[in-house]
Amino acid sequence: MRSVEEHRRTLLALVDELPPETVPIAGALGRVLAADVVAAVDLPGFDNSAMDGYAVRSADLDGAAPGAPVVLDVDGDIAAGDTTRHVLRPGTAMRIMTGAPLPEGADAVVPVELSDGGVDRVSLDLAAEPGRHLRRRGEDVRAGDVVLRGGVRVTPGRLALIAAANLAEVAVVRRPRVAVVSTGDELLPPGSSLAHGEIVDSNGPMLSALVRAAGVELVHSAHLRDDPEALGALLADVPGEPDLVLTTGGVSMGAYDTVKEVLSRDGRVDFVKVAMRPGMPQGSGVVGARRTPIITLPGNPVSSFVSFHVFVLPVLRALSGLDPEVPTTTATATRGWASVAGKVELTRVVLDAEGVRPSGGQGSHMLGALAEATHLAVVDAATSEIHPGDEVRLLPLVGQD
Amino acid sequence: MRSVEEHRRTLLALVDELPPETVPIAGALGRVLAADVVAAVDLPGFDNSAMDGYAVRSADLDGAAPGAPVVLDVDGDIAAGDTTRHVLRPGTAMRIMTGAPLPEGADAVVPVELSDGGVDRVSLDLAAEPGRHLRRRGEDVRAGDVVLRGGVRVTPGRLALIAAANLAEVAVVRRPRVAVVSTGDELLPPGSSLAHGEIVDSNGPMLSALVRAAGVELVHSAHLRDDPEALGALLADVPGEPDLVLTTGGVSMGAYDTVKEVLSRDGRVDFVKVAMRPGMPQGSGVVGARRTPIITLPGNPVSSFVSFHVFVLPVLRALSGLDPEVPTTTATATRGWASVAGKVELTRVVLDAEGVRPSGGQGSHMLGALAEATHLAVVDAATSEIHPGDEVRLLPLVGQD
Repeated sequence: MRSVEEHRRTLLALVDELPPETVPIAGALGRVLAADVVAAVDLPGFDNSAMDGYAVRSADLDGAAPGAPVVLDVDGDIAAGDTTRHVLRPGTAMRIMTGAPLPEGADAVVPVELSDGGVDRVSLDLAAEPGRHLRRRGEDVRAGDVVLRGGVRVTPGRLALIAAANLAEVAVVRRPRVAVVSTGDELLPPGSSLAHGEIVDSNGPMLSALVRAAGVELVHSAHLRDDPEALGALLADVPGEPDLVLTTGGVSMGAYDTVKEVLSRDGRVDFVKVAMRPGMPQGSGVVGARRTPIITLPGNPVSSFVSFHVFVLPVLRALSGLDPEVPTTTATATRGWASVAGKVELTRVVLDAEGVRPSGGQGSHMLGALAEATHLAVVDAATSEIHPGDEVRLLPLVGQD
Repeated sequence: MRSVEEHRRTLLALVDELPPETVPIAGALGRVLAADVVAAVDLPGFDNSAMDGYAVRSADLDGAAPGAPVVLDVDGDIAAGDTTRHVLRPGTAMRIMTGAPLPEGADAVVPVELSDGGVDRVSLDLAAEPGRHLRRRGEDVRAGDVVLRGGVRVTPGRLALIAAANLAEVAVVRRPRVAVVSTGDELLPPGSSLAHGEIVDSNGPMLSALVRAAGVELVHSAHLRDDPEALGALLADVPGEPDLVLTTGGVSMGAYDTVKEVLSRDGRVDFVKVAMRPGMPQGSGVVGARRTPIITLPGNPVSSFVSFHVFVLPVLRALSGLDPEVPTTTATATRGWASVAGKVELTRVVLDAEGVRPSGGQGSHMLGALAEATHLAVVDAATSEIHPGDEVRLLPLVGQD
């Protein structure tokens, strides 16, 4: 039986980072930087005031003290956005707004709260430390600095930095295009009238949702019956030019496992057992003339969901230009649970302020517990039981709050 | 000075949960359920096999043991999706696939791995426990059960459950519509040629990104110069019929604070100081004939970003039908930092496997540090210093990985 790590390596060998494309910054949200981002300007772009107040030469306030104020003429106002290069005459102050450029000659700002607020003359009764309440040109970022490294996702905070660095566009990795195909004669769309033996196709909507929640593009989704010809024709040329095809169902040991039957024929897809629970039957390879990478997921909804997180997500991350390794966290178990020895167990768990516990029935057909889970606990093959108080490794669920 | 809690209550009093709408389940991803979801079918919908193998009457295998097999005639196959109501004749077995309906009379399944895999006759050398490898009708969910409560977000796992419960549509709360207006004469769009005193409008793109990352609809975004007439005209009738208007800038103590000047006139917006850092100058009220709620955020990008998380996000959650309280976590500080006494300090921090530390320069104009932050540490007003080893409360950032 193949280990989880081994199977993940096999899958990652099927894909490369997608090519870059240049997009306006608003379109970069959630995308991955294809290259380092270099600031086009200093931040701040000029010495400016950190407060609303008065720009002064600190020497002019020497000796000022409570009860012994210094009074200065106010020689005009400087608003944020004022593009004049003002000069502060010795022995005067200028009213200055937060973010407004410091006049030449000034070396400090006195906040309006520490003055009498005068418009023509201002009374200041404290000495001013040179450099006080100033933001110096380039103290945050210098033009030419690498402000962000390639390979990170553009968050709102990073987008603000890219904008402030005066870049209208940025190079990001193209978004992966994914197709989802669920298979099985027994499956009908939600809202159908179900005969004995028929069930709703929850895998199709679930995988489509996982793909969208992972921030990649769903280019095609379909349900096919267990018809080898139709399935073969679809997989030979999947619509939407996907970078990755996902199937669910038809890969077990059953006599009607169509996906396995069709894809075993051309020898470019391998079917293996992976030492994990749920999700043992897995397959991977390439299909069609474009040699599109394919991952065949098991048909049990919970197995399919778990397999997405353990195998598909690292592949999507690699295509997107991210480190394939999904960051994990740890938490303390508040309840114990049994795990299977010799396989990695992925337990559906709820993490709250108290710690982590199984989210309910762990059967691979149990959707009620899946819906409440916030994480998957990754219990390694050597461990057969989690005890209360044990530290547990947690994989976050895609699209969780 | 108003407390953070007090100001949040003032803001929440401006809004109600938006009305529900019914959408196809694929469109429900990320939305908030407007009502409880009731299962239309049992899950599983019928007794079925948990394994590929043989459906048997356990009594027929009494006495079977290694070396003393029982051999049964195989009386046909049952595939997943087979809608015939099969009956298992005593003294026979039927081949059955995972998920296929159990034939009447059968009370156990023997996995194919524990048989000789026979097609016409099968040799079984272990007794079968009644109920083994079966999934019973309704053991996960019963038709009529409330499977999800209103007021929770639809994750991929919940969407799978809604689909499996045979619902094609679901009632969700309408998505909030938000308009973003940044103000200031000094601001130019990213990519502009900047004169002395001019800077790039990073607040506009940043807030638009935060709104989108929060899963709500951005219906309008604009930058206005400090022109009271233009600003007054826009705010009297903001395009896109927003449920909430956000402005940035123009609310400080400066002489050119246009937002404050325009909105103070009609008396429906209050400007207050809130005991937090950064983000002290805040304002809220309603504008226009539609009495649209407005939140006026400070112009410093970091203040604006922090204010979004502390004040805007709870309002968006309330509009969306979620508990307004943003869930927080805690972590241990690996480095200490000073905090301001008498105000809630929102420190931009990085959380990693070691713990939590400030992400860099904490000036309210420092975008470099903001871009690296993963959380805001919430340091209460009574605390003036965080020491290494202290437990710190963390607010997650919107749109973070």
